[in-house]
Formats: sequence, C-alpha cells, structure tokens
Amino acid sequence: MPFLNKLTIVGIGLLGGSIAAAAKDKGITQQCVGIDCNAQHLQYAKQLNLIDSIGALDAETLQDTELLIFCTPVSTLPALIRKALPFLPSTAIISDVGSTKASLVAAIAPELHLHKAVFIPAHPIAGSQHNGPQAAQANLFENKPILLTPLDNTPDWALNKLREFWRLLGGNITEGSPQWHDEVFAEISHAPHLLSFLAVDLINKQPEADKLWALAGNGLRDFTRIGASHPDMWRDISLENRDAILNSLKRYRIGLDEMIHQLENNDIEALYTLFKRAQAARKKRWD
Amino acid sequence: MPFLNKLTIVGIGLLGGSIAAAAKDKGITQQCVGIDCNAQHLQYAKQLNLIDSIGALDAETLQDTELLIFCTPVSTLPALIRKALPFLPSTAIISDVGSTKASLVAAIAPELHLHKAVFIPAHPIAGSQHNGPQAAQANLFENKPILLTPLDNTPDWALNKLREFWRLLGGNITEGSPQWHDEVFAEISHAPHLLSFLAVDLINKQPEADKLWALAGNGLRDFTRIGASHPDMWRDISLENRDAILNSLKRYRIGLDEMIHQLENNDIEALYTLFKRAQAARKKRWD
Repeated sequence: MPFLNKLTIVGIGLLGGSIAAAAKDKGITQQCVGIDCNAQHLQYAKQLNLIDSIGALDAETLQDTELLIFCTPVSTLPALIRKALPFLPSTAIISDVGSTKASLVAAIAPELHLHKAVFIPAHPIAGSQHNGPQAAQANLFENKPILLTPLDNTPDWALNKLREFWRLLGGNITEGSPQWHDEVFAEISHAPHLLSFLAVDLINKQPEADKLWALAGNGLRDFTRIGASHPDMWRDISLENRDAILNSLKRYRIGLDEMIHQLENNDIEALYTLFKRAQAARKKRWD
Repeated sequence: MPFLNKLTIVGIGLLGGSIAAAAKDKGITQQCVGIDCNAQHLQYAKQLNLIDSIGALDAETLQDTELLIFCTPVSTLPALIRKALPFLPSTAIISDVGSTKASLVAAIAPELHLHKAVFIPAHPIAGSQHNGPQAAQANLFENKPILLTPLDNTPDWALNKLREFWRLLGGNITEGSPQWHDEVFAEISHAPHLLSFLAVDLINKQPEADKLWALAGNGLRDFTRIGASHPDMWRDISLENRDAILNSLKRYRIGLDEMIHQLENNDIEALYTLFKRAQAARKKRWD
C-alpha cells in the first residue's frame, strides 16, 4: 500500500512537478492531484503523468487529501492557505516549499488555530535554472537538504509523517524553527543573491559596459549566476525576510569597511589572512 | 616556416604550459624553450613535449629568443624581467599573462627605456581550477578574450607580431592602456573575488557554520567558487591593483548602503527595479 492515499499539490512548476514526479515514480501516493492557475501547466503535467487528475481548492479535492503542498510564490500562500482551510480534514497536513518562513507563519497563525489545522513549513534546497513542469525531475530531491520548520504546536504524528514523506523522496532532513530558517537563509542565500544582483548592476553602470562584459571570464559568470534569478521571486523574498536580510547585509557592510580600511592602510597581510581562512572553509565544503 | 623561430616561456604552469602546448600543436614556433624554478614542472613539460628544451635567463637561451613570455606571479615579474634584459636582442618582444598591469609597468619602465626593450603586457582571460603543466591544454585560449595593453612607445611591428601570435593561438584580441586594464579588472574580477572571499568568511563566522554549509545550495556554491582561489595570487593582486580595487569596493559600499536604506524604508520597489535591471544585463551576456 502506498505511503499516502492522496497528495494534492498546488502549483505544478519545477518544484511541484518534481514532487509529483518523485511521488508517482516511487509509488509514494495512490493519487496525485494538481491545482494550478496555469491551465497549460496542468495539461502538461497530466500528459506527462505527473498528476492523476486536476483539482481545485474546494471540498471535492480537499476532503480526503492527506498532504497538501503549496508550491506557489511565498506571497500567494496566506490567501491560498486561507482558502483551503475550511475544506481540509483534521488529519491533513499542510506544507510548502517556500524560501521564507517566519512572516508566513505569523500571517496565518490565527486561522490555523481557528481551524485546528496542521501546517509544517518546509524548504527543499533543490532547484534548477529551468522553470515549469517541463523541467520536473523525479530525482530532484535525491540527497538534497530538506529543511522542516515545525511550529511550537506541531503534533508529533504530523512531523513524523512529513519527515517520512521527504525521506521517501530522497531528501536529507534538517529541522529548525521558522526564525532560525530565515536567519540562516538570509546568510547563505538571500544576501548573496542581493550582492550578486548588485555586482551585475555596478558593472552594467560602468562606461563601455558591453566591452567589460565581453572581457569577463568564468569567475564572474559563476559569481553572477544568481544575479540572473527571477526578480519577482526576489522581491517577495526581500519583503518576507526583510529583517534577517538587513542583518546579514549589515554584516557585509562591516566586512567591506574592514577590507577598504585594510587596503587604504596597505595592510595586505590582514586581507591575506582572510583569503586563506576563506579558501580553507570553501574547500572544506566543496571539493 | 613557423611564425616564430624561438619562443621562450618562463613559468611552465597552467598558462605557460598551455601557451607552449598551443604553439607546438599549431606549429607556431620552431623551438619552444621552458624556464621554471620548479624542476618537476620542467621535466613534466619536456616529457609531454610541451617544450623542446630547458633554458635559463642567460645569454644562451635569450640571445635568439623572438618572444619571451613570463607566466609567473605578477610579484616576481620586475626582478625576472630585469634579469633577462641584458641578454635580449633588440628584436625580441617581452610579454606576460598577469592580472595587473599599471604598477608593473611603472616598476620596470626605467630599465626598459635603458635597454630599449619592447615590453607589451598581455592578459589572456582563460584559466581552470587546476594548476601546473599537467593541466595544460592546447585549446585553452580558443575564442577567449586576450587583452593587450601596449605602452605609449610600443612600436607597431611589435604590437602587430604579438597580436598575430595570440590570434594564431585562437584568442580574440582586445586592446587598452594598462591603467584601463586595471580599472576594468578591478570591476569585473578583483572586487568580485574579494567579495566572494568575504561571503565565505562571513558564513564561516556564524554559529553552527557547519550546519549552514550543509544547507547551502548550488547558488552559494557558484557565488563562492572564486572564494576558493589561491590566497597568494590574490594577495599579489590586492597589492598590485590596490587603488582600482579600492575604487571598486567603494562603489560596492555605496550600492550596499542603498540596498540597506531601501530595505529599512520598505522600498522594495526600488530593489525590484535593480533586480530586473540586473537580470536583464546578466541574461544579455550569458544565455
């Protein structure tokens, strides 16, 4: 018997489509239902057998849903979750795949309480530069970190079930509070994205920018890859995780001021110490 | 008849070895002589047929050298060029492959003048994460930008000859002054390297840094790839191109201050405008 009777996914893009593909591929769910405002994506997901049927945030789709995963932009989640709550059974688990957690939890906590609903935010650290269900991969989550951020009142049965679901999809589970998640991701993802956007913009403002871009090598190509990320997504993240991003950018400002101070004082040895420390730390993580 | 009678390369690492490999492979030179303080590198280069013989910065090697290319760290160049000058014929061209230009030119201008020697700094924008002659590739420069920075008194015959040499190696020639080179590379390479080192160091200073690294995805991996660069090389570059790097880092500080100001004032639309502008510029350069 499959692990789930019914999995419902809202937003069948790269992540939603890959969850569906993996769940079908590994026989994790009896039924997989897709919900999306993009009819083409739904049709494509159906044709590819990523989903068994097309549903809606209504009683018919939700009354027997065991796991409802939202894979739409973070900014859409409060309204969509509110819409789903009246139709979900008390045994259902709501989850998501968003890049920010604390402000979302704050926004919908009262309604969750009112409906005695179980919401466990999740953040699979997996992606691709491609979008849409066409880019879905059943192995997208294999050996990828999956960060679960249970709330204070999350029941054990639900947390265990969501853990097992992601384990079956191939992920490596890590857990922390929504606040901790947001501080960590400001540091390891959000601030670097903003700096990468800034680097592209500064180069682009130079005289003869086209000539500069033509001379740029693979180092800059990689450094600015995340500077080509989707602006709408990063507007949302900047808004949702403003405080933690601010803290992180202020640490960059302090570090940058130190570097400027060291260069101005010809203290190249201090810079060299930082380079050595950084190289060692980076090599510890990736080859 | 080959384009050159005798090519002498000082420093048979990745770049020197690849120039040798390409020159031999394409029949550009009759003879290729290697000079290196690392005996193992020389032996390896000889075994691989990258070079025909092993030389030294003395009369025997240099008296009939047509093109002498230094591929050693920028900090070693003034002393090495000074050592070579007395032995070179007036028809020889001296060049290099270093990442900074103006301070080197200033350091050796008097000796060049004294010996009526021709030095044309060059910077091939090509590399690899691997080092040493083992990593040499004959096609390393194919379709790669090669920036030549002739001096005010560089004779046309010499500039034309060096242009043709690099064209034969497969490169795309661009030209500018040494000062312009240094300002451009501070912007498109040096400042990004320093920021990438800084990003690694800031994450590494966080509590539970190992947990943060484990959660980091491909975005951070690429953003920090240049933060694993060789500390010695980046100490040299920081020293040699201090002024231009300082100017570039100060522009980052202004940009960072603006981002912090926008976040503090909830002016997410201003950030969004920057994200859109950056994404468009990045996509124009790399798919």
